[in-house]
Amino acid sequence: MAPKVLICGIIAWADDEIKELLAPIVEVVYFDSTDRKDFLQGFQSGGKYEGTVAMFRDNNVTDKIGIFDKELVDAFPSTVKWIAHNGAGYDQIDVKACKANGITVSNTPGAVDDASATTALYLIISTFRNYSISERYLRDVKWKPDGLAARSHDLTGHTLAILGLGGIGMRLAELAHAFPMRIIYHSRHKVADAPEWCEYFENVEEMLVQADVLSVNVPLNPETVGLVGEKWIRALKKGAIIINTARGKVIDEEAMIRALQDGHLASVGLDVYPNEPEVNPKLLEFPYITLLPHMGTENQDTQRKMEVRALTNVRDFLTNGKGKDIIPEHRSKL
Amino acid sequence: MAPKVLICGIIAWADDEIKELLAPIVEVVYFDSTDRKDFLQGFQSGGKYEGTVAMFRDNNVTDKIGIFDKELVDAFPSTVKWIAHNGAGYDQIDVKACKANGITVSNTPGAVDDASATTALYLIISTFRNYSISERYLRDVKWKPDGLAARSHDLTGHTLAILGLGGIGMRLAELAHAFPMRIIYHSRHKVADAPEWCEYFENVEEMLVQADVLSVNVPLNPETVGLVGEKWIRALKKGAIIINTARGKVIDEEAMIRALQDGHLASVGLDVYPNEPEVNPKLLEFPYITLLPHMGTENQDTQRKMEVRALTNVRDFLTNGKGKDIIPEHRSKL
Repeated sequence: MAPKVLICGIIAWADDEIKELLAPIVEVVYFDSTDRKDFLQGFQSGGKYEGTVAMFRDNNVTDKIGIFDKELVDAFPSTVKWIAHNGAGYDQIDVKACKANGITVSNTPGAVDDASATTALYLIISTFRNYSISERYLRDVKWKPDGLAARSHDLTGHTLAILGLGGIGMRLAELAHAFPMRIIYHSRHKVADAPEWCEYFENVEEMLVQADVLSVNVPLNPETVGLVGEKWIRALKKGAIIINTARGKVIDEEAMIRALQDGHLASVGLDVYPNEPEVNPKLLEFPYITLLPHMGTENQDTQRKMEVRALTNVRDFLTNGKGKDIIPEHRSKL
Repeated sequence: MAPKVLICGIIAWADDEIKELLAPIVEVVYFDSTDRKDFLQGFQSGGKYEGTVAMFRDNNVTDKIGIFDKELVDAFPSTVKWIAHNGAGYDQIDVKACKANGITVSNTPGAVDDASATTALYLIISTFRNYSISERYLRDVKWKPDGLAARSHDLTGHTLAILGLGGIGMRLAELAHAFPMRIIYHSRHKVADAPEWCEYFENVEEMLVQADVLSVNVPLNPETVGLVGEKWIRALKKGAIIINTARGKVIDEEAMIRALQDGHLASVGLDVYPNEPEVNPKLLEFPYITLLPHMGTENQDTQRKMEVRALTNVRDFLTNGKGKDIIPEHRSKL
C-alpha cells in the first residue's frame, strides 16, 4: 500500500505547491466524505484514505465530520503520524489524544501574524475613533452621529496592553509602536528577544490598570478558557477598550457584556466569538462597538502563505521525519 | 475701542487655553449671528464685533454665514488683520481676497497629521481586507460574505503611492512603512527631508502605474480641483484602490465612479465628498467600498491640539505681529 497524504480541507491557493511539494513523492488524496462515519470508514482496508500517513487539515471539514476530538483521533489507524493543521489556532484538535496515538500536530505560526495583527490594529483604530457607527450612519444616509469627538481618541500616546506576546502579539506591538503607542505586555514568561520598548508585567492586574486598550492574543486551550473574566475586566480603567482577535472563549462574554452595559468598558473590537458563526444578540445592541466576522486571515496573500507552510510541514515530515512547526504541546516528545 | 478677538466658530476643548492664551491680553467675543447680514453689521460702529483685530475661525459657521468668500472678506473693516483657521484645509476662505485686504491667514498644520493619516491607514486596511462589507454582514446577522479572501490582500509588500507628501502624507508614509509597504510619492518638488525609503516620482503617471493604492493628500485649491481625473485614474493598474482623506473635489468623482463600475478600480476608501454632507447615491451602490463621513480629525485629542494651535497663532499675532502657521499663499508677503 503506497503511503498517502490526505488533504482534509480546502487548498484554495496553493494548488501549484501541492504539485511541487507533494505530488512527486507521495500519492495525494482529497477529502470526500459527507459525515464522520464515512470519513472513518475511508481509512479502513480498501477505503479511499487507506495508507494515509499525514494529513493537511483545516476547519472547513468541521461542518461535515465535527472537530478532531478524542473519538475521531482514537479511530485513526496507526499509519497516521502527522496532522498539519492549516491555521494558528488548533483548538479544534484534541492534541492530547493525538500524542497518545503517536500523531504529531503542526500549525502555521508566522504565516498568520501579519494578517491577524493588522486586524487587531484595525479594531483599535475603529474603536478609538468610532468608525463602525460612522460608516453605518453614512450608509443609512444620515452622515454622522453627533458628539462623536467627545468619545473618540487618537491612538498616539495611549497605552496598549498585549496579553500574550507570541508572533501575532509581537507583530501588533510593532505596528502600534509606529504611532507610537506605549506597549506593555504579559506572557507566561518575559519574551527574551522582545525590544526594550515592550514593557513586561509579570503581574497581569498591574498591567491592566495602566491600559487604555487590551488586546487578547493567547491561544485557546483548557487553561485559557474564560481567562479574561470579571476580575481582569474590572482591573482595567473605566473607559478602557478590549480587542479580541484570538478566540471568543478566552473572554468571559457575559462579564464583558455587563462591563459594556454599565459603562466600565467604553468599547470592544471583536473578530471572534464563543460559538461562531453565532453572535450573541446582546452584542448587536451596542452601537459603538466594532464586530468583524472572524476575518483575521481572510485574504489570499496570507491564506496562500498558510497553505504553503502547512504543505511544507507535510513534505518535511515525509522527507525528514518531522515538520518545522510542531505545536508546543508536542515538542517535548521529539 | 479696545482690540477684540472674535471666536468665529466653536471652541469645544480648549476653554482653559482661551483663558490662558488670550483673556489676559485681549477682549474675547464670541460669534453670535444668525446670518451673514447680522454678522457683517456686527463689525460696524457700535456693533458686537467692532474692533476685531483677529479671528479664530472654523467651518461650523458656514451654515449660518456661508464661506469666507470675496464678498464677505471685502466687507471686513480694516482693523481685521489675522484669521486663524482651525483646520488643515482652508478651502472655505478666499485667501486671495484676504491678501488684497491685508489679512493674513493661518491654519493648523501638524495638529491634524496624526488623526488624518490614521484615517487614511484605516481606509487602506478596510479596502484591502474588505472589512466594511464584513461588518455590515455581521450586523445583519449574516456572518460573512462568500469569496472575500479572493478579493482581499495583506498591506505588507504592496505599494502605496502618496499624492502630496506634506505633513499628513508623510505621517501616513511612516505608519504604512511599519508593515512595510513600499512608499512612492509625487509632490510639486522632491521633499528634502523625506527618508530615503520614500521614492520620489517627478512624473505622476510613472508613479501611478506602480501603485496598488493611491492616497490623495493634496489641499483643495484652484489648481487641484479635479486633479485626479480620468487620465490619472486609468494610469493606475487594473484592480488598484484610491483613498481620499483630503477633499472630495480633488477627484473627478464621475470618472472614479466609472472606473469602479467597469472594474478598473477594485475599491475606494473615502472620508471626503464634493458636496458634504451629501454623498453621491451611486457610491452607496458599491458594496465593497468604504465610506466614512469626514471623520479625519473627529476626536477630542486632535481637536484640542488644533484649537490650541489656532489660538496660539492668534496670541502670537497679538504679541509678535505674526503667528507661526501662515498658509503658503501668504508667506511671501511677510
